[in-house]
Amino acid sequence: MYFVKVFVTYKPSVLDPQGEAVKGAIHQLGYESIQDVRIGKYFELKVQSSQEPVETVVEALCDQLLANVNMETYRYEIIEMEEEA
Amino acid sequence: MYFVKVFVTYKPSVLDPQGEAVKGAIHQLGYESIQDVRIGKYFELKVQSSQEPVETVVEALCDQLLANVNMETYRYEIIEMEEEA
Repeated sequence: MYFVKVFVTYKPSVLDPQGEAVKGAIHQLGYESIQDVRIGKYFELKVQSSQEPVETVVEALCDQLLANVNMETYRYEIIEMEEEA
Repeated sequence: MYFVKVFVTYKPSVLDPQGEAVKGAIHQLGYESIQDVRIGKYFELKVQSSQEPVETVVEALCDQLLANVNMETYRYEIIEMEEEA
């Protein structure tokens, strides 16, 4: 069993209007030290061990479903969990 | 200057309907090894050094704006960046 964290963010060249809006809200709250905000998606997956390597499964999922590879980029971390008895 | 990653997720006791929907879509694509999906928000902040510790600023921001502390929980990682000349 694996615990996988997937982070999907806009590519640096793509404008992030939601992040800009949140930055505006942060400045209105008075936190002027925040210079930049970018917003992404975060997925936590529980993946059962199978014949396919978990990296292959996660990358296929990101490419097909979780990320829009035209505008977004993704990173993931895989943590191996102990099997439950 | 600090680079801060903030992860906001539903508390474990809160149902995540968006995650359930994505799990359904994943299974329809044929990836039966994915057992559970939970979806959260991911923020990348650039924070200028100020008199206040960056932890204090980030926690205040999460409590006031980025997370709904009734239903959500947050974690953050702070990475110190070299100042630009």
